[in-house]
Amino acid sequence: MPAASTAEMSTARKVRRAAIVVTGTEVLSGTRRDRNGPWLAGRLREVGVQVAHVVIVGDRGADVLAALQFLIGEGVDLVITSGGLGPTADDLTAEVVAEVAEVPMVLDSALEGRIAAIVAPLQKRFENLDSDALGAGTRKQAMVPAGATVIEPAGTAPGLVVKARGGDGPVLVALPGPPRELRPMFEAALETEPVRGALAGIGEIRERVLRLFGIPESEIAATLRAADDQGLALAALEITTCLHGGEIEVSTTYAPEDQDAYEAFAGFVAERHAQTLFSMDGTTVDQQVAALLVAGGLTAATAESCTGGLLAARLTDPPGASRYMRGGLVTYANDAKSAIAGVSAALIEADGAVSQAVAEALADGARAHLGADVGVGITGVAGPGGGSPEKPVGLVWLSVSMVLPAHGGSVSDGPPETKAAEGSSADVVRLTRSVTLPGSRADVRERATTVAMHLLRRLLADAGGSAAAPTQLPQPPAVAPR
Amino acid sequence: MPAASTAEMSTARKVRRAAIVVTGTEVLSGTRRDRNGPWLAGRLREVGVQVAHVVIVGDRGADVLAALQFLIGEGVDLVITSGGLGPTADDLTAEVVAEVAEVPMVLDSALEGRIAAIVAPLQKRFENLDSDALGAGTRKQAMVPAGATVIEPAGTAPGLVVKARGGDGPVLVALPGPPRELRPMFEAALETEPVRGALAGIGEIRERVLRLFGIPESEIAATLRAADDQGLALAALEITTCLHGGEIEVSTTYAPEDQDAYEAFAGFVAERHAQTLFSMDGTTVDQQVAALLVAGGLTAATAESCTGGLLAARLTDPPGASRYMRGGLVTYANDAKSAIAGVSAALIEADGAVSQAVAEALADGARAHLGADVGVGITGVAGPGGGSPEKPVGLVWLSVSMVLPAHGGSVSDGPPETKAAEGSSADVVRLTRSVTLPGSRADVRERATTVAMHLLRRLLADAGGSAAAPTQLPQPPAVAPR
Repeated sequence: MPAASTAEMSTARKVRRAAIVVTGTEVLSGTRRDRNGPWLAGRLREVGVQVAHVVIVGDRGADVLAALQFLIGEGVDLVITSGGLGPTADDLTAEVVAEVAEVPMVLDSALEGRIAAIVAPLQKRFENLDSDALGAGTRKQAMVPAGATVIEPAGTAPGLVVKARGGDGPVLVALPGPPRELRPMFEAALETEPVRGALAGIGEIRERVLRLFGIPESEIAATLRAADDQGLALAALEITTCLHGGEIEVSTTYAPEDQDAYEAFAGFVAERHAQTLFSMDGTTVDQQVAALLVAGGLTAATAESCTGGLLAARLTDPPGASRYMRGGLVTYANDAKSAIAGVSAALIEADGAVSQAVAEALADGARAHLGADVGVGITGVAGPGGGSPEKPVGLVWLSVSMVLPAHGGSVSDGPPETKAAEGSSADVVRLTRSVTLPGSRADVRERATTVAMHLLRRLLADAGGSAAAPTQLPQPPAVAPR
Repeated sequence: MPAASTAEMSTARKVRRAAIVVTGTEVLSGTRRDRNGPWLAGRLREVGVQVAHVVIVGDRGADVLAALQFLIGEGVDLVITSGGLGPTADDLTAEVVAEVAEVPMVLDSALEGRIAAIVAPLQKRFENLDSDALGAGTRKQAMVPAGATVIEPAGTAPGLVVKARGGDGPVLVALPGPPRELRPMFEAALETEPVRGALAGIGEIRERVLRLFGIPESEIAATLRAADDQGLALAALEITTCLHGGEIEVSTTYAPEDQDAYEAFAGFVAERHAQTLFSMDGTTVDQQVAALLVAGGLTAATAESCTGGLLAARLTDPPGASRYMRGGLVTYANDAKSAIAGVSAALIEADGAVSQAVAEALADGARAHLGADVGVGITGVAGPGGGSPEKPVGLVWLSVSMVLPAHGGSVSDGPPETKAAEGSSADVVRLTRSVTLPGSRADVRERATTVAMHLLRRLLADAGGSAAAPTQLPQPPAVAPR
């Protein structure tokens, strides 16, 4: 089985609440995606803290201050800020934090020396670097709120921990914006005296996630009502449902003493949705596919047209992907399908590039050309142009095929085939389907990739027995309260 | 040239401010990425509205209410919410909006009928669908705050427009969470009477973005100080800088009468950073690469190891990518590099898979196997495992090679080669470099993809003359004030 997902975590029962403030005009304006808020929220949950709000503000001092004051007024125990600690004049988080802490800014000379030592090597790395510019930036970054606990820089910017309202308010932790600086510095902040004080005595609550694929959200609402009608103890459970890219997530938080109530509920969902529930332990379809490939000692290869490499990128995302991933073909142009995946030009001419036959030929071509056990083929109309009445934008054909050992069980009535690369006879099992996906070009590409992952999961799970079938509730890992 | 980017837009001078509230426990907890906040922020800027805050809250009524009250207290003119309008019990945005508007919830029977007509086809699409469940969900979604302007559903959930504080407060627009519902419904909301009233008389300010690649942020801070020293009129410009994945963005907003001040500033940056400034018109490197390929009538192909398809996916992201993209090879396993890209096994044995020679062979193999004019090869150690003292995690070799017509100019002293696909003699130009990238496996993969895009841009720009060189300021498109 894959490692426990982040959903298998504990949060606070003697509830500690936190808020996150993400600063940066570029995030606020939507031109940059924020990666810190989600990461911080996940880590806070892991240490038992419930996140109440995430606020994104631009690099305007008044707006950052207003956000901090709102959150302090909401009675949270901890406020984490990301960004605004850099060397330029629009980096003003330290000053705002000082204002909220009701202390002056002071120069930390020792810190200035340490930052200077960190930035010195930059002068070798970049040509024509202005050393006055470096010095001015260093001095700005060494100005800190009086009495603040300094977190040593992972990059060049130090982090800051203070208590708001002159010591009576919640703990504020200011971290720099680059994720690879913020992450280790958050871990260091957890060990500081003020944060330890704020989190002392945290209790435990549990969070579990069920995942379903291929049904509308209203069906889950009906299941919740039916569970209630049948007298299941739902009051002890905080259940939320969420639809995302064709998958439904049912997240439940509860206290350890309500474990039985949760298991009864999860069992009820499993019984009503046996065909569409694919995860009871919070694992994602990506984790399950990787685990099934590794468990079966199988290798995979892809041939993608409309998704243009997204499926290969997703399969190679996890560390250790080399255990199962051979590679992929991106057959974007029609004649590339013939040139690199061996799809016959006559077949494309006869059935069209977006067709069942071409999807199957792509899956088989990926397998054969990359010497893999399992092949996935995807061909579709991602749009916005290129649709027709017969083959509208959003139509995608997907096929997964796998070579079975000589006497393996077959999950479909696909014909036996010769695997050219090995020159020996073997059974091939195959799943092929078409979908018509809604949304933008990006939506169609992303969803087609998700459908392919589910098709791959189903073929692997069916062929490998019930290894991936959600037949029992795994026991949650024990998480020690802080 | 590519189409104007979203940065080439106008925002409010007679400033109208808006806030965005994203609801959803799954977004708050960091398990789902929010796609609505950034999109709404971008669209609001386009219609001339400055976004002051984005607040993310869970599906808890008290937290949603607190966020709305904070934002109303901040004096914004418009508050947009996304999510919480679905059929399940945890979808409670409509009720909170009614509370803020100080009106009761009422059943809109006509709306109930329209939603019922929309969901009816679901019963055909899914097997064993519970029609009572559908009916209950429909009725819930037809409960609206009294007096609200209803926005017709793009999916099944209607949107709502009300005025807060019984008519005296800002306009609230509640939209459903799925992006393909929210987007058209936001456009419809803009046309409603309350929103038109809130946005009446908006002025214009301009926003421009400069992009640089390959220098540290402190250099830009120094340039800003130098510009000030030289007496440039920076006071009229609101300038923010942002470092992201090796690129620096310098965003400036200003009023139309300060266009001269902006041009003087932009010219100053261009002079000091001629080697690293790659965009003066807000276009991204992706847009520039696509435009250069189309302008040159050139086709591209990729061969990727550590990035696993991310570069091919990025090159096929824009609509119309088929004009220039032939396809790609994902050569994840070492012998896949030989099998599908023709890299000699002896070369891999001698130099190692992560090496200059293999990167160059991958670029050439991509070109040859896919019959493309330009090939890109990437091979590196994405980590977290697999590093060594000589080849640490983060080391990536990248190569871009291109066939020139017989008498084209050469930008490097690469040797002439025979392009097998055409059987004729031609010059090959090539750029190859290695980088050692910091961060996580995902960071290394993403950054390597960005470095490849810049390498590709440079080869195309150099080979094609100065088409892409930022030598003049484009005139902004006129955007009519509302």
